[in-house]
Amino acid sequence: MWFPDKTRVGWWKNGYPQYFGKVINSTNYIGIRVFIEEEEIDLYKADIKEYYRELDMQHGILTRKFTILHNEKETDVEVVRFLSVVDSELAVIKYSITPKNYNGEITFIPYLNGDVRNEDSNYDEDFWKETEKSAADYEGYLIMKTKDNPFGTPTFQVATTMKIVVDGTVTEISNQCKEEYVDNTIKVKAEDGKTVSMYKYVAVTTDRDYKGNELVSNGKEVLDRSITKGYEVLLDEHKKSWLKRWGMADIEIEGDKEGQQGIRFNLFQLFSTYYGEDPRLNIGPKGFTGEKYGGATYWDTEAYAIPLYLSTAKPEVARNLCIYRYNQLDGAYHNAKQQGLQGALYPMVTFTGVESHNEWEITFEEIHRNGAIAYAIYNYVNYTGDKTYLSTYGMDVLVGISRFWAERVHYNKKKQVYMIHGVTGPNEYENNVNNNWYTNKIAVWTLKYTLEVIQYLEANGHIDRINQLHIQKEERQKWQHIINNMYFPYDSELDVFVQNDTFLDKELMTVDQLKAEERPINQHWSWDKILRSCFIKQADVLQGLYFFNHEFSKEEKQRNFSFYEPMTVHESSLSPSIHAILAAELGLEDKAFEMYHRTARLDLDNYNNDTEDGLHITSMTGSWLAIVQGFAGMRTANEILSFAPFIPKGWERYAFKIVYREHYLKVEVNNEYVSISQEGLPLIMKIYEEIVTLPENGKITMTLKQQKQQQLTSTV
Amino acid sequence: MWFPDKTRVGWWKNGYPQYFGKVINSTNYIGIRVFIEEEEIDLYKADIKEYYRELDMQHGILTRKFTILHNEKETDVEVVRFLSVVDSELAVIKYSITPKNYNGEITFIPYLNGDVRNEDSNYDEDFWKETEKSAADYEGYLIMKTKDNPFGTPTFQVATTMKIVVDGTVTEISNQCKEEYVDNTIKVKAEDGKTVSMYKYVAVTTDRDYKGNELVSNGKEVLDRSITKGYEVLLDEHKKSWLKRWGMADIEIEGDKEGQQGIRFNLFQLFSTYYGEDPRLNIGPKGFTGEKYGGATYWDTEAYAIPLYLSTAKPEVARNLCIYRYNQLDGAYHNAKQQGLQGALYPMVTFTGVESHNEWEITFEEIHRNGAIAYAIYNYVNYTGDKTYLSTYGMDVLVGISRFWAERVHYNKKKQVYMIHGVTGPNEYENNVNNNWYTNKIAVWTLKYTLEVIQYLEANGHIDRINQLHIQKEERQKWQHIINNMYFPYDSELDVFVQNDTFLDKELMTVDQLKAEERPINQHWSWDKILRSCFIKQADVLQGLYFFNHEFSKEEKQRNFSFYEPMTVHESSLSPSIHAILAAELGLEDKAFEMYHRTARLDLDNYNNDTEDGLHITSMTGSWLAIVQGFAGMRTANEILSFAPFIPKGWERYAFKIVYREHYLKVEVNNEYVSISQEGLPLIMKIYEEIVTLPENGKITMTLKQQKQQQLTSTV
Repeated sequence: MWFPDKTRVGWWKNGYPQYFGKVINSTNYIGIRVFIEEEEIDLYKADIKEYYRELDMQHGILTRKFTILHNEKETDVEVVRFLSVVDSELAVIKYSITPKNYNGEITFIPYLNGDVRNEDSNYDEDFWKETEKSAADYEGYLIMKTKDNPFGTPTFQVATTMKIVVDGTVTEISNQCKEEYVDNTIKVKAEDGKTVSMYKYVAVTTDRDYKGNELVSNGKEVLDRSITKGYEVLLDEHKKSWLKRWGMADIEIEGDKEGQQGIRFNLFQLFSTYYGEDPRLNIGPKGFTGEKYGGATYWDTEAYAIPLYLSTAKPEVARNLCIYRYNQLDGAYHNAKQQGLQGALYPMVTFTGVESHNEWEITFEEIHRNGAIAYAIYNYVNYTGDKTYLSTYGMDVLVGISRFWAERVHYNKKKQVYMIHGVTGPNEYENNVNNNWYTNKIAVWTLKYTLEVIQYLEANGHIDRINQLHIQKEERQKWQHIINNMYFPYDSELDVFVQNDTFLDKELMTVDQLKAEERPINQHWSWDKILRSCFIKQADVLQGLYFFNHEFSKEEKQRNFSFYEPMTVHESSLSPSIHAILAAELGLEDKAFEMYHRTARLDLDNYNNDTEDGLHITSMTGSWLAIVQGFAGMRTANEILSFAPFIPKGWERYAFKIVYREHYLKVEVNNEYVSISQEGLPLIMKIYEEIVTLPENGKITMTLKQQKQQQLTSTV
Repeated sequence: MWFPDKTRVGWWKNGYPQYFGKVINSTNYIGIRVFIEEEEIDLYKADIKEYYRELDMQHGILTRKFTILHNEKETDVEVVRFLSVVDSELAVIKYSITPKNYNGEITFIPYLNGDVRNEDSNYDEDFWKETEKSAADYEGYLIMKTKDNPFGTPTFQVATTMKIVVDGTVTEISNQCKEEYVDNTIKVKAEDGKTVSMYKYVAVTTDRDYKGNELVSNGKEVLDRSITKGYEVLLDEHKKSWLKRWGMADIEIEGDKEGQQGIRFNLFQLFSTYYGEDPRLNIGPKGFTGEKYGGATYWDTEAYAIPLYLSTAKPEVARNLCIYRYNQLDGAYHNAKQQGLQGALYPMVTFTGVESHNEWEITFEEIHRNGAIAYAIYNYVNYTGDKTYLSTYGMDVLVGISRFWAERVHYNKKKQVYMIHGVTGPNEYENNVNNNWYTNKIAVWTLKYTLEVIQYLEANGHIDRINQLHIQKEERQKWQHIINNMYFPYDSELDVFVQNDTFLDKELMTVDQLKAEERPINQHWSWDKILRSCFIKQADVLQGLYFFNHEFSKEEKQRNFSFYEPMTVHESSLSPSIHAILAAELGLEDKAFEMYHRTARLDLDNYNNDTEDGLHITSMTGSWLAIVQGFAGMRTANEILSFAPFIPKGWERYAFKIVYREHYLKVEVNNEYVSISQEGLPLIMKIYEEIVTLPENGKITMTLKQQKQQQLTSTV
C-alpha cells in the first residue's frame, strides 16, 4: 500500500512529478499487552533476570525469551512469531507464560491498531481512515482505507483479521472497539510451574486481491484453515519452506564465521522481502525494514537484485520482476512525454511506472536507469534461455526504451557524432554532465540488442509483433546510424574510457589523500565540493565493464580499474560488490576480499552508522555477487556458464548452490580444488577457460588455479 | 520585517541553508469601512455612476473618485492617500464624502488589523503575535511581534499608530479592541451638498529604530507633528519632494507616449521602493509589490539598480547600497565556510548576509554574483570619484571576495591553467557547467581590481589597513598567478568567447527556429530540455562585454553579439536592457529599440502575463539603462563621462537628467542635434569620441551623428 504525497519544492520546474509516493505503514497487528496480576509487562521498566533473542534465519522464526521479577514473583516468558512463507497472508504469534513461584492471573490483550503514521512523512499526515471494525470474543477485525488523494492514484483497503486461541484456563473474556482499534481482554488462570500460551493468528487481506466486501470473509478463511492445521503444523510447513529456499541458495563459508553469518543474514533478509510470487510487487531499497526511499522501486532491482534471484530461485522470480516493468510501460511512456520525448523512460522512483521523484538532476537526468531495464531482459533471457519472453513481453519494453534513446541523443554536426548531454551517471557525485561514458554505452547497447531481438523475432515467425509496434526500416536505420556514430569519451594518453567530457580537467586525486575526518565526504563536504571533486560514489565506467564484461579485454579492464577504483569512495552501498567482482577477475584478490567484507556485514555491524534507516536490502545482493561472480568468477555471457574460482586468504572452504536453467548446481572451493556437482542433464560449461562437460547428476573436480596476485597501482 | 521559514527539500544536501527568509506582510493600516446610513460602501456590489482612479506619479499620490447610488441616494466619494517621502514613518488617507441629494448620517470605521498572512507562505503560517494594543476616541495602536524562530534570527516589533481627524459634525464616537485589531466608529452628520472628510494619519514605527517600549510614543510624536502641520502642508511637502526627485532623474520622450509613460512608471516604482536613506535596506526583485522572491536581496541590486541610482540620485544612495553589503560581510564569510572555502561568498538570496536559498545549482554554484558585489564597488568609486570608500569599506569586501575566488579556482596541472568548475552563469538555462567564461572573467577581474586597490592604498598611506587584513606578498603573488593563467574558453574558428566548456557541442539553433507555441520555453519545456538546449535566458558572455565594455574592441563585441543574441530568449526581465545597450553601441538601432520596448512597459502591459506576482522592480532599471547607456551611449570608464547618442526611429526628441559627481547634467537629443547642459563647474568629457569641455553652468550642442545602421546576422 502506498500513498502519493504532494511534491513541494522551493522552485517548481517544468516536468516535475506531481507527487512523491511512499509505502505507508499499516495496521499494527503484532501488539499484545500482557499483565501479571495488575502489572503490565514492560521490558523498559521491568527487573529482567535473563533475556534472549534469536532470529532463526534457517527457519524464518523470531524468538524472545526472558525471565522477569516483580514483587518477588518470577515469570518466564517466551514469544515466538513468524510470517508464514506458505500462506503469505498469515502471521502467527505464540505468547507463553510460566509462573515460577506463584499462582495468580495473567491478562492478555491482543489488539489491532489502525492509528499508525509514517516517520518519514513530510507533513505529518495520517494516510488512513477506518471503514469497518468488529470485535467478538476470541476475534476481531479492522478495515482501514487510504484517504482520497487529488492525483487519481488508487486508494487501497486493508483488512486485518485476528483470531485468538488460548492454551490455559480462561476465567474471563471481553472485547472492545475504539477509534481505529479493536482488542480482546482475556484473563487466564496462572499456576506455579505451568505454562499458559496465547496464540494470535492474524490474516492481512487487501483489495488488491479481493473485492472490498469480501476482505474479512477471506481473512477469516485464512485463519480458519490455519487454526484447523494448528500451530505446530503451521510452524513446521513454514520451516520446511525456508529450508527449501536455503536448499537452492545457501552459501557455506568455512574459516570466516562472521563472513558466514553476513551472507546468510543478507540472503534471509532478501528472501523475506521478495520471493517473486507476485509481478505487481518489487523490492524497495530498504525492503520493509525502514521508510527511507519510500519503499519504491529503483533500478537497484534490475542491476543488483535480478542476477541473484536468477541464480537462487526459480526463473519465475526474475521473470516476475521483468513483467513488473512490462506492466508499467504506459507509465514509462508518460515519463518520456513529460520531458517532451518519444519512447519510454522508466522512472527513478515509482509505484506505478509514473515517476515520483523530484530532483531534476536525478529524475530528468539519471536516465542510464532506462538501460538497466533493458539489460535485465537480456540478463533474464541469456541466463534462463527463455526466448519466448522476448516476443511476449520483452520486445515492447526494448522498443520503447530504444525509441527514447534515439530521441534523447543529439547529433553534433561539427564533430559528426551523436552525443548525450545533460545526464547523471551511476556516480551521483557528478550531476548534469555531458557524454557520461556509461550512459552512452548502455544507450548504444540497448539499440544494438533491440535490433538483434527484432532480427531474432523476424527469423522466428513474429513479424506480426514487429508490425504491431510499427517498426519501420527507417527507424532501424536511424538506430544503426546512432550505434555506428556514438561518441565515447576516451583519453589516448591514459588509454582509459573517460567518465564524461571534462572529467580529466578535474583535480585528480586518490582516496588515500583524503583525511579520515573528511570521510564519508557526503557527510562532511558541501554538495558543490563533492560535485567538483574527482571522487566517485559508485562504479560508473566500471559498471559498464561489469555489465558488458565479455566485450572488453582484460587489459582494458585492468587499466580502467587501476584508474577509477583509487578515486572511488564507495559511499553507495551498491559500489563494493561491482568492484569486488572486477578485482577478483583481475587477480586483485585482497581488494576483492576487502570489497566483499564491506558488503557482507554492512548492516549487521552498522558500518555506515545508518541502520536506523533500515537495512540496505537491494545492496545485500552484493555479498552474494562478490562470492559467486567475484571469488568463484561465475559468468553466463553467450549462453555458457563458466567459473574461474579462487579462495580468499584465511578461508578454508566455501560452497554455494545455484540454479542454471534446468541444472541445480553446487560449487565447492577449498584451498586445493574446485568441485562442481549438479542435479540435471549433462551440461557443457567452462572452468578456467577450459570447456568441460558436467555429467548428468554428476560432479567435476579440478585443481584450484593459483593465479599470481596482482597489486593495485593507481595511475592517477 | 522578515521571517525565516524552515528549509524543506526532498533530499537534504550538505551545506544547504537552514531557512528560507521572506519579507512578511504586516499590519493592514489602510482599512476604513464607510457606511451611508446603514449601508456599507462596497464597490463590488454598489451601483456605481462614475469611477476614476489616478496614480499621480509626478507627486506620488493615489486618488480614487466615484459616485454611487443607493436607494436613490447619490453620493460623491473621493479618497486620497500617500506615503510621505518627507516623513518616512507617516501614511495619510483623506476620505471625503459629499451627499448629492439627501441629508443623513455617515459612519467611518478606520481600523488597524494585525491578522495578516503571506500568500506565498509554504505552510500557511501566521508569523505574528500581538503584544499590545489600545483604542481611544480618535486614536488607537497595535503592536505586533514576529514569532520566535529556531534559527536565532532576530524577531521584530512593529507598532502601528493611528490618529483620526474629522472635518464635519461628529454625532457619536466609540472605539474597540479585538484580537489583533483596533478601530474607531465615528458617526458624522451628512448634509446635502456638503463634503465631510475623515483624515486617517498612521505612523509605523519599528524596533529596528526605537526601543520596544518607545514604539508608540515615537509613533504618536510622528502623528502629533503631522497633525500640527495639517493635511495640506503634509501633502505639499510630499509633492515637492517628489518634484525634486524628478528634477534629478526625469526622462522626457517626444513622439512615443507609451514609451514616455513606461519609463516614468518604472522610475516612480523604483523610487517608491528604495531611495537610499537607510543602508540596512535593499531592493527586492518585486519591491513591495508582490511576495515572489521573498522580498530578499539579490545581485540584481548591484548589477542593474546601482548604475541607475548612481546617475539619478545623490551618491549616498549607491553608497548605502554598497555599505549594506559591507555590513553583511560576516554572513558572506559564513557562506564560504559552509562550502568549505576561505574568503567571502555573498549570498544569492539574503536578509542578513547569510544565504537563504536552497537549490544547489544556484546557492552553491551561481557564484558569479560574488563578482557583481566587487563590481559595484568599482562602479561606485569610478562614477563618483569617492576613493575614500575603498579604505573605509570597500577594501574589506574586495579582499574577502578575492580570497574566495583564489580558493574556488583549481589548477589543472596537465593544461597548466586555472579553471572554475561547477558553476551556473548568469544564463540560468544551464546549470553546473565548467569554465563559464563570464564567471572566470569576473573572478579574474576581481583579483586584478583588488590588487590595484591594494596598490592605491599602499601609495596613499593606508598600509595599516593592508596589514589589518593580513595581506602578505605570497597571497598577492598567488592572485597574480591566477590572473596570468586563467583559462577562458574560446573558439578560434568562430572567433568568439565560448559560454562554457562544452557549449559548442550543443545543437546550435537560433530563437527564430522555435515554434511560437513553445515560447516562453520555461513554460513549455521540461527543465532538462532547457538545460540541454543552446537557448540563453539572459546575457552571459554579453554581460561580461557590458560590464567590461572598455576592455573589448568593437569587432569582438560585434562577433559575440551576433553569435549569442540570436540564441537568447530573454526570458529573464534582466536580459533586454543589456542587449539594448550593446546593440545600440554596435549600430543595431532596431534591435536596441525592440529590446527597450520589452523593458519599458513590461508591467504596464503585462507582457509576461505575470504582473499578479508583482512588478519587476529590479529590472525596471532596464528601460533607463537602455535609454541612457543605450540610445545616448553614456559611458563612464576610466573616470571620463562620454556620450554617443542616436535617436530611435519615430522619436522626435528625448531628454534626461543625470548627476555626475558635482555636475547636474541634462542631455537632449532630437533628430538633428545632441545638446548637453549642466549646473556645475567646467567638465571635460567626450561626445562621439571627441574630447569637449562642458562650460560651467553651460551647454554644448553638436550635430547628431548618423551612423550607418547595422543588420544583425546570426553566425550560428
